[in-house]
Amino acid sequence: MAPETKVLAHDSFARCGKLFRMVRVGVDEGVREELLRGFPAETVFVRIPTKPTELVEVDFWLLPFFRKDAAQVFQNLCGVKVVQSMMAGVDWILPWLPKDVTLCDGRGIHDTSTSEYVLAAILASLKRFPIYRDRQLRQLWRSGEATGDELLDSGGANTSLYRVLQDDLSGKTVLIAGYGAIGAAIEKRLKAFDVNVLRLARSARVEPLVHPVTALRELLPQADVVVLIVPMTQETKGLVGEEELALMKRGALLVNASRGPVVVTDALVVALQEGRIRAVLDVMDPEPLPEGHPLWTAPNCMITPHIGGATPQFIHRGFRLAAEQVRRFAAGEPLDNVVEDDGY
Amino acid sequence: MAPETKVLAHDSFARCGKLFRMVRVGVDEGVREELLRGFPAETVFVRIPTKPTELVEVDFWLLPFFRKDAAQVFQNLCGVKVVQSMMAGVDWILPWLPKDVTLCDGRGIHDTSTSEYVLAAILASLKRFPIYRDRQLRQLWRSGEATGDELLDSGGANTSLYRVLQDDLSGKTVLIAGYGAIGAAIEKRLKAFDVNVLRLARSARVEPLVHPVTALRELLPQADVVVLIVPMTQETKGLVGEEELALMKRGALLVNASRGPVVVTDALVVALQEGRIRAVLDVMDPEPLPEGHPLWTAPNCMITPHIGGATPQFIHRGFRLAAEQVRRFAAGEPLDNVVEDDGY
Repeated sequence: MAPETKVLAHDSFARCGKLFRMVRVGVDEGVREELLRGFPAETVFVRIPTKPTELVEVDFWLLPFFRKDAAQVFQNLCGVKVVQSMMAGVDWILPWLPKDVTLCDGRGIHDTSTSEYVLAAILASLKRFPIYRDRQLRQLWRSGEATGDELLDSGGANTSLYRVLQDDLSGKTVLIAGYGAIGAAIEKRLKAFDVNVLRLARSARVEPLVHPVTALRELLPQADVVVLIVPMTQETKGLVGEEELALMKRGALLVNASRGPVVVTDALVVALQEGRIRAVLDVMDPEPLPEGHPLWTAPNCMITPHIGGATPQFIHRGFRLAAEQVRRFAAGEPLDNVVEDDGY
Repeated sequence: MAPETKVLAHDSFARCGKLFRMVRVGVDEGVREELLRGFPAETVFVRIPTKPTELVEVDFWLLPFFRKDAAQVFQNLCGVKVVQSMMAGVDWILPWLPKDVTLCDGRGIHDTSTSEYVLAAILASLKRFPIYRDRQLRQLWRSGEATGDELLDSGGANTSLYRVLQDDLSGKTVLIAGYGAIGAAIEKRLKAFDVNVLRLARSARVEPLVHPVTALRELLPQADVVVLIVPMTQETKGLVGEEELALMKRGALLVNASRGPVVVTDALVVALQEGRIRAVLDVMDPEPLPEGHPLWTAPNCMITPHIGGATPQFIHRGFRLAAEQVRRFAAGEPLDNVVEDDGY
């Protein structure tokens, strides 16, 4: 359904002598009242049980986070006209959602929290915080001494008498692959660290200079840090494979904050095990990462379990977006963030 | 020795038909040649053995990092006119250095690396990276589920259905206690995260507004993050004790990047064990932190072993400062960064 189409609610009700077009908004049964303030008067909240056993009538389904059983829950809903996700990536919804249901994503509400995650990932890796955390757990006070981490030989003075186990961000070149709103938010924060930013996106642009995806291999050897924040599409699946990893600088850092399959896992495991690059992965393939998978123990690799931009403040931002979308829906206005056929 | 005093080298030598006033510069025997470039023609490097057994004649001693045996090594040097440290804090040198030797510190060369460390510390703690690292070591894929970490109840939406184990930096109030050059560098980086900054220093100022140290107790309850970057003096020893910690917001973060004794360790251990605050400590009292010390295992506490701003780039900056100081010394110009009697 195109964004300009007016979606009309299908029922109305009277309250305090005024007629409202009712919008049945389906929310998970555990959601607290404080998140449900600010919705328009037309809203009638319908609590959806975790495992619905009978049909629930809903106009507007709030599907905040990834859930494995989403397709199954959807089978127990009827009358759904809009599904509002709070995630930037809705690749996992598209396969099972009927074409006549409008899908809206969470574009714009992740900028702050996801860009903060990426900066945290870059800094924690450069400052070798995972190594120091491991030493803390062993109650071992040791700073610059040898670790068997061969990548650490690449910094210059750190192989001299004064061994140091950390690196400056200042002066580094960071490639942001998938330069959109989140990418711009990442750049804003990086700039305060005196970093040189390279930008890459599906659509090349001139101001600021954004390179086309086809320039990836040309840009990789220039980057000290590669941030993946591309959407998951057929184009971006396997974007970073063996050849791309081989083009990265020795000791460079790969941060994947997009989707796991954007990187070829086997090739990444090899690059890490050979001590060629560092990585911070918030997403991977497969998810959840099973016990015993080689990524868990790959050297110079830090793993977070797909936490992305999911902060408390983000959830509040998500429900405020949802409230505004329901208002538009009730008023017959075009919705924001409508997902087109290819998912973006 | 006051900075305006002209320090003259005590000997001269001829090279290529030109007369130079020789400056014997003492450096550790392991220092690589690449760090010793850029020194003036007057320089004659004198390699100082790790454990000197006989007297070594040196005009200018480079003492880059903390070393326990510095006072002992100094006993084996003669003719020393200047000691050049690369550290910001020289409290450990003052007690044993004769008053007629000029002491210079590393003011100005830490701004980049130490401010990056502080940002890394704040972000890693807010994003709960230590918890995720611990889970990685256990090969456990788990994001928002219960951790027994009661502080996590303080964020609002995270107690709802959607549990998230991380926090935004955006919108937080950060108190920088010890607002000098490094503090300003921290603020520059924080500003890109849309943070409200409070400043505190020995000397209050108006533009930008810097509060006097006496305002500490008034400011503590306003801060979500408290960064300690004060010098170690008689005034700042024990600056943050039981009462100050009790004034911090529940769940607030304390980052100590100054000196261990600025915080009263026993009071900090209690505050952490009672789950009242979080901490990232690069410095502590005692150092090295002995095995079995309760700080190692205190909840919500991340420890790094006094790595501060010691990056490879910092070491290069330090030797460039030293080269410039030797040039001034040889030219009879006043030295920079001369330490006054009280250590600052």
